[in-house]
Amino acid sequence: MLPFDKLLPFDRTAAPAVYLQVANSMIQHIRSGVIKPGFWLPGTRELAGILGVHRKTVVAVYDELSAQGWIEAVARKGFHVTRELPEVRPGGWGKDGQRSGKGRPGREGQPGKGDWSGRQDREHAFSKEMAAPFYPVERGRFRLPVVSVPPSRLIIDDGHPDSRLAPLELLGREYRARLSNRGGRRPVYATMTAGSPRMREAMVGYLADTRGMQASVPNILITHGAQMSIYIAAQLLLRPGDTVIVGEPGYYVATQVFENLGASLLRVPVDEQGIDVDAVERLSRGRVVRMLYLIPHHHHPTTVTLSPERRMRLLEIAEEKNFSIVEDDYDYDFHYSSSPYLPLAASGHNNRVVYIGSFSKSLSSSIRVGFMVGPEAFIVEATYLRRLIELRGDNHMEDALAELIRNGDVGRHLKKVNRIYQGRRDHLCGLLDSNLGDVVDYRKPSGGMAIWARFNKRAPVKELAGKALKMGLYMSDGQAYNTHNKDYNAIRFGFASLNEVEMDEAVQILTSCL
Amino acid sequence: MLPFDKLLPFDRTAAPAVYLQVANSMIQHIRSGVIKPGFWLPGTRELAGILGVHRKTVVAVYDELSAQGWIEAVARKGFHVTRELPEVRPGGWGKDGQRSGKGRPGREGQPGKGDWSGRQDREHAFSKEMAAPFYPVERGRFRLPVVSVPPSRLIIDDGHPDSRLAPLELLGREYRARLSNRGGRRPVYATMTAGSPRMREAMVGYLADTRGMQASVPNILITHGAQMSIYIAAQLLLRPGDTVIVGEPGYYVATQVFENLGASLLRVPVDEQGIDVDAVERLSRGRVVRMLYLIPHHHHPTTVTLSPERRMRLLEIAEEKNFSIVEDDYDYDFHYSSSPYLPLAASGHNNRVVYIGSFSKSLSSSIRVGFMVGPEAFIVEATYLRRLIELRGDNHMEDALAELIRNGDVGRHLKKVNRIYQGRRDHLCGLLDSNLGDVVDYRKPSGGMAIWARFNKRAPVKELAGKALKMGLYMSDGQAYNTHNKDYNAIRFGFASLNEVEMDEAVQILTSCL
Repeated sequence: MLPFDKLLPFDRTAAPAVYLQVANSMIQHIRSGVIKPGFWLPGTRELAGILGVHRKTVVAVYDELSAQGWIEAVARKGFHVTRELPEVRPGGWGKDGQRSGKGRPGREGQPGKGDWSGRQDREHAFSKEMAAPFYPVERGRFRLPVVSVPPSRLIIDDGHPDSRLAPLELLGREYRARLSNRGGRRPVYATMTAGSPRMREAMVGYLADTRGMQASVPNILITHGAQMSIYIAAQLLLRPGDTVIVGEPGYYVATQVFENLGASLLRVPVDEQGIDVDAVERLSRGRVVRMLYLIPHHHHPTTVTLSPERRMRLLEIAEEKNFSIVEDDYDYDFHYSSSPYLPLAASGHNNRVVYIGSFSKSLSSSIRVGFMVGPEAFIVEATYLRRLIELRGDNHMEDALAELIRNGDVGRHLKKVNRIYQGRRDHLCGLLDSNLGDVVDYRKPSGGMAIWARFNKRAPVKELAGKALKMGLYMSDGQAYNTHNKDYNAIRFGFASLNEVEMDEAVQILTSCL
Repeated sequence: MLPFDKLLPFDRTAAPAVYLQVANSMIQHIRSGVIKPGFWLPGTRELAGILGVHRKTVVAVYDELSAQGWIEAVARKGFHVTRELPEVRPGGWGKDGQRSGKGRPGREGQPGKGDWSGRQDREHAFSKEMAAPFYPVERGRFRLPVVSVPPSRLIIDDGHPDSRLAPLELLGREYRARLSNRGGRRPVYATMTAGSPRMREAMVGYLADTRGMQASVPNILITHGAQMSIYIAAQLLLRPGDTVIVGEPGYYVATQVFENLGASLLRVPVDEQGIDVDAVERLSRGRVVRMLYLIPHHHHPTTVTLSPERRMRLLEIAEEKNFSIVEDDYDYDFHYSSSPYLPLAASGHNNRVVYIGSFSKSLSSSIRVGFMVGPEAFIVEATYLRRLIELRGDNHMEDALAELIRNGDVGRHLKKVNRIYQGRRDHLCGLLDSNLGDVVDYRKPSGGMAIWARFNKRAPVKELAGKALKMGLYMSDGQAYNTHNKDYNAIRFGFASLNEVEMDEAVQILTSCL
């Protein structure tokens, strides 16, 4: 008889249950060869006596070991250690330097070297390089980093709303109520792939009231933010080699989506009236163009709004050339000097337009709810693709948001923040004029959340950003806006998320850095 | 002088502000030609007198009209209607049958036909077909519908957790607290693309404690559910024509991702021990295989667990053939008869494995938080791709979940529901044996949330599902599991989300439908 009392120590005060401690010790001894394959274990009553534990504890030990395949029960004889040892352990598998005995060669010293006991073994850890090849993301000529914002006292973002003003408490209350609704056993299910029914229904009225758009539920897909809508629309519209027209400068994350799909980019200048439609017509002559990506309000990054005349022209050209327009109207809800222009999608677009919007701007960047509106057949395909990307969104959140749309909270919030953001825009313009007039050139945008601030050459933005960071102010280094043949030396100076005191301080820091 | 008191009626009790009502009437008259281009408007004081409103109201009317370009101010002379009329209206643009007068031809009767006043015009509405071509989603030989679950009293899902048991109230509280935290001005920002820092840090400990996995923060990407991890991993690993190995039968949504990417599928049989590794080796001989998609615990749909020996073999074959393994361990947290086996990713995998998991199973399908663990260089690319798909996840929700992981709520919950689900599994097995023994064949799964219930030919599942629905019970019609050459006539009978009373009723209905 083996000295089981010595072999199987345990600590009643430790966290793991006693039976698990004993079972784990037993496994160690089996694996190390102290307890040999085929060895008959003492009966449960006997071992209980040796260890000074209840018999049920030993039963639990043997149950666990046999469930894991370390020992086998033989009727009326008891338990013996499995003759062909499993390559497993409690929550573990793989055995030091050994193969599973089936003559499979493998490579010496290769996998299987470590195991549970070798948890600290770096060979088990994920490290830097992938062993097998994979395809990196196509990022165009510039391999833009995913920006990591260092902890800073102040942040100049590129045009985010001020979450402090949003009705997030109301939304959070609605959300929590739905999340914990144990009675209403309405499972979140495949049916929700296109968005929660309530949210899609609420969108029908919302689109009509705010944008004059005639859409029905089958025209609407709710996504996890506007970016996902861009991604899905582009996936359906583009194949490698297809031509897509984008503005220059343009929204670089969208451009990367198109590049990643292997599309051929046609960069068309954007001036004070928006994208240059004459250039669109000229450049698309003699080519097949598949789609045009458009930001009609407050083009990213330059913040210009596409003139009504050009909107008309663009639809005409799309008809003539038979391409689709992806209208990313992320900033529609924020227009200050007059009402915003209706979307192209609200006009006689002949089902050429896929319209994209988001509540991440309307409420808070933390609210990831966007939408896509398009012809039903397109939305059907978009829904399929969305299921492949993520089975569905957070339908409770969508329901909560639908409630805020319906009871008018969203409308009231937009009215309120439009007034506030307009004031902040004007305040920032004043600051730029008085403090940075000889360094920064800009045009006051008619809406949105950012000013396109072009610095003159004597003040390289990259350098400035570095200096500012040391003083607790984060700002973009402007690299993201540059394309292969153009250095804009500019940033989008977001004014919506900063109150006047914060803006004063931010501009003060900037001034002192020059 | 025009009869402005007649032309510009308004209603003080109506919702739109008086100045907007007046402005809108004015625009209608300008557009219809009643008020002509070049017409000098009465002074503000005069019009205020005519209409019986405060002078400030008229100032607001003229401000609005001039902001929209309908009228122009001339210093010391007042306002006149713009000579070249803008093709815009309040929140609208486009004009009936007219061009903007710049000699641009366009096509007669083409776009621009409708406008704001034509809001009900169906030509402005999104309808069914897209005008320009697009690429439908590749869905293999079966064009699976996105399932729409009709309202039913009872639902047999394919293995969802019971949200009624989850600590959603705690999570909702944490979430709401973060959402409405106005003080902590930590903007949700680009830095969050890979997941909230807190969540990624919490995952390091969680993966080590529950799965024996050695990963650091740069090895971890938080996604919006496991499906997004599958999609991203597949995008990085596959190009059209690349070979990917999947189990047969297998998880059809994942398979569709691979098909959609143009990959060539190698379907390998799955038996009671999991995927047939001998077949993997045989079929991959003489070919370049890029990746193998694996569900190690409770394979979808058949619920079998991959044996430890096969896990070893699979890693060896992956070494020999130099392919990557995408390990979708969605069901790891639910194993009843013993501890689950450690993931391949916790063994000596030599950076060949990309590990995928989710909290949608651990807590509730409504919680869309999944994760991917892999070599750092792979996670960097995955983060880029994730930004193209959605800029970031819901970082407040991730922070809330991180808190529940850290304070042990998730662990306690898992312990509790494992016990409950085990009981439900056993209860369902008992029901199937006693009520449907001659119709349903199954093997008791060692974990997970569903039983793979194969009906015999006399009971076609599709027909059964139709009958059951009429009695208030929704169940899958089994079509999703079939592949082009195989009709399994089976469903995944989810037992986790039904309590015993509900299960009794569901089986009773099924029995009565036979």
